Amino acid sequence: MILFVDMDEVIADTYGAHIELYNAEFNGELTTELCSGSEVWRMVPEAHQDSVRKHATRRGFFRNLKIIPGSQDVLEQLSRKHEVYIASAAMQFPNSLEEKSEWLDEHFPFIPWQNRILCGHKHVLKGDILIDDRNYNLENFDGRGLQFTSPHNVNTQGFERVNTWFEIGEKLL
Amino acid sequence: MILFVDMDEVIADTYGAHIELYNAEFNGELTTELCSGSEVWRMVPEAHQDSVRKHATRRGFFRNLKIIPGSQDVLEQLSRKHEVYIASAAMQFPNSLEEKSEWLDEHFPFIPWQNRILCGHKHVLKGDILIDDRNYNLENFDGRGLQFTSPHNVNTQGFERVNTWFEIGEKLL
Repeated sequence: MILFVDMDEVIADTYGAHIELYNAEFNGELTTELCSGSEVWRMVPEAHQDSVRKHATRRGFFRNLKIIPGSQDVLEQLSRKHEVYIASAAMQFPNSLEEKSEWLDEHFPFIPWQNRILCGHKHVLKGDILIDDRNYNLENFDGRGLQFTSPHNVNTQGFERVNTWFEIGEKLL
Repeated sequence: MILFVDMDEVIADTYGAHIELYNAEFNGELTTELCSGSEVWRMVPEAHQDSVRKHATRRGFFRNLKIIPGSQDVLEQLSRKHEVYIASAAMQFPNSLEEKSEWLDEHFPFIPWQNRILCGHKHVLKGDILIDDRNYNLENFDGRGLQFTSPHNVNTQGFERVNTWFEIGEKLL
């Protein structure tokens, strides 16, 4: 079985990093719960939105992300049985390419470079399962799509949903 | 139509860069013709092979590659009619990710980041045509494979061969 796993919001906590950076710089009180159903940048005053939208272009942003709980353990087990690929849209931020690679080396060393894909469109991927948080990736994937719950997609309907890596483990292991 | 185009040896002249670097450093007299049918590193004395194999890890190696003649013009025309993706195995050299991205920005600006794929295995790509120099990529691709002639593959049999971008233009435009 060939399995593609998105990076941001699925194994790497970009959402949490946006909130943390915003609160630190603007003395904000955003929380994941407050942002539920929306993107972080939409939840801040208009004057601050541009700053939030540019977080991802900062050096170090992708290198220091926290790991989504359970992802290491479940992916390590899955990768023993299946062909597991990390599929991320890093080409949007060229500065992130090396950081994402180093982050994977540190936290997911059992997924070798051959199994890491950076791409903008996921409809060109051919495999059995895609675990992703974004509707547009899941809609265009020609296989079984699992929507990983992230604050921005809690109200989305129509995809097979997984809330945690423990649920993924139960479904796929 | 979805078309994948490899980078090294197809639109970027890595082979020529290896020869140039080697000759400059070891006062060598290698030429493309002398290397015909083999990899550059195999054509140098054993004591120098390690140095050649490490060219690709040097800062700047991928940023300064020459363009394979005709590739810009033909790809620009193809990208007006078809979905054209650059598919490169850059994950092998994390230092190359940003350089490859900048190189494409400069020489192939008509191929946006969404249409750039960095991956180790090309059998996970779903599309109609793959233009590549390497047998192992063409063998595993589930579509029409075109082998782009490079010194190392001149003796390979069994794939539909294209010697130049002008031939590709004739076949696909």
